[in-house]
Amino acid sequence: MCEANAYIIRNGKEELVMEAVDKVEPENDGLRLVNIFGDQKFIPAHIHALSLVNHKVILKE
Amino acid sequence: MCEANAYIIRNGKEELVMEAVDKVEPENDGLRLVNIFGDQKFIPAHIHALSLVNHKVILKE
Repeated sequence: MCEANAYIIRNGKEELVMEAVDKVEPENDGLRLVNIFGDQKFIPAHIHALSLVNHKVILKE
Repeated sequence: MCEANAYIIRNGKEELVMEAVDKVEPENDGLRLVNIFGDQKFIPAHIHALSLVNHKVILKE
């Protein structure tokens, strides 16, 4: 599988938002994250950067 | 490995920009893409959506 963990940068630190993320899609003023188990989460942020070999998706508000 | 292919949406169609992308980082008014071979490319776009199980990174201008 090729999922990644999503982190959000807050106060200069990376906080884990969701593990095993498959899909990230724009929705209203933020993003809908869906993991490989089908769990969903809305985050008022945008995708800042990716480091896929390290399984990291970095979000920023 | 967990790299993905990057596509940009142009005229409603997805055009392949780079294969085997590892890192995507913001740079000036766009993104720097780096693939697993170390090749780099600057794209004046933002990250629109992800579908990691399908190995897809979708960019938009």
